[in-house]
Amino acid sequence: MAFKRSKGMENDIILERVSVREYTDEPVSEEQRKRLLRAAMAAPSACNRQPWQFVVIDDPKILGEIADNEQYMKMARHAPLAILVCGDTSLALKGDEEPFWVQDCSAATENILLEARELGLGAVWTGVHPMQDREDFFRKLLGMPDTIVPLSFVVIGHPARDRHPIDKWKPDRIHQNKW
Amino acid sequence: MAFKRSKGMENDIILERVSVREYTDEPVSEEQRKRLLRAAMAAPSACNRQPWQFVVIDDPKILGEIADNEQYMKMARHAPLAILVCGDTSLALKGDEEPFWVQDCSAATENILLEARELGLGAVWTGVHPMQDREDFFRKLLGMPDTIVPLSFVVIGHPARDRHPIDKWKPDRIHQNKW
Repeated sequence: MAFKRSKGMENDIILERVSVREYTDEPVSEEQRKRLLRAAMAAPSACNRQPWQFVVIDDPKILGEIADNEQYMKMARHAPLAILVCGDTSLALKGDEEPFWVQDCSAATENILLEARELGLGAVWTGVHPMQDREDFFRKLLGMPDTIVPLSFVVIGHPARDRHPIDKWKPDRIHQNKW
Repeated sequence: MAFKRSKGMENDIILERVSVREYTDEPVSEEQRKRLLRAAMAAPSACNRQPWQFVVIDDPKILGEIADNEQYMKMARHAPLAILVCGDTSLALKGDEEPFWVQDCSAATENILLEARELGLGAVWTGVHPMQDREDFFRKLLGMPDTIVPLSFVVIGHPARDRHPIDKWKPDRIHQNKW
């Protein structure tokens, strides 16, 4: 297959991804933003419904307001960029299938983190849904309708320092053909 | 930063990932399985709780039983391998934070799909949670306790044919600093 490629650990975006919460002043370029969003939209989704919306936030005033209000999002104050990944329940499957938008938007979020690593950027995933107070905060701040559910707030920038990934390999979490 | 690397579209596991539902007879090697599971465990998780468990299924009888019972998982019958990604609610955060295990295990699932692509394998994500009947089916089949919630059933093999990814870029899903 043409897409097969050899790989060393040093090139592995999955294993080398780390949460990055400190950033330099360097902005995230327009091309890099597009790459991050394109990666997000390449995620799989249940029945290919792509039930997502993205709010790109680079206004320092808004980033500061988020940092002021959400204790787990303080790193946003000095970040050049954040992306709020939202589920669009009007695009999601109706009825039984609807809940899969959380999985779909989580896959999109992971793709953003991995693409950030690919680009030499650093990012951190902070959770919004299902915390009602955080959902309400973002809806009010950004003027979003109730059909839009913010799932994750990803803060992104150029890493202020290098961080080594931790090895999270746990063979006891693997089961073979039965529990 | 040392991890920065140049990249062409032809090397992009995120953009080139496609759902693969037809496989050759070639088995997935022990080394490949380990790579898939290591990628899964490298996913981020809320407060680094890593609330996941993985059931590796390669018994043709069990794969056939899954294909018989779940209409969306028929591709499992002729697959060499599947991984059931499960949330372990006993490892998840208690109280308000607990629901994040769905996001965590979804990120782990996306990592398996991307690593499969990296290895020249093909995979497809089929949803389990929150469909109660599918959860119950897997719990009974594999003898899992109620604290374990199967989230996704990922079927994996060597692709029987090449598939080109579709471009899912949708600029209308991007919003700037407000809705």
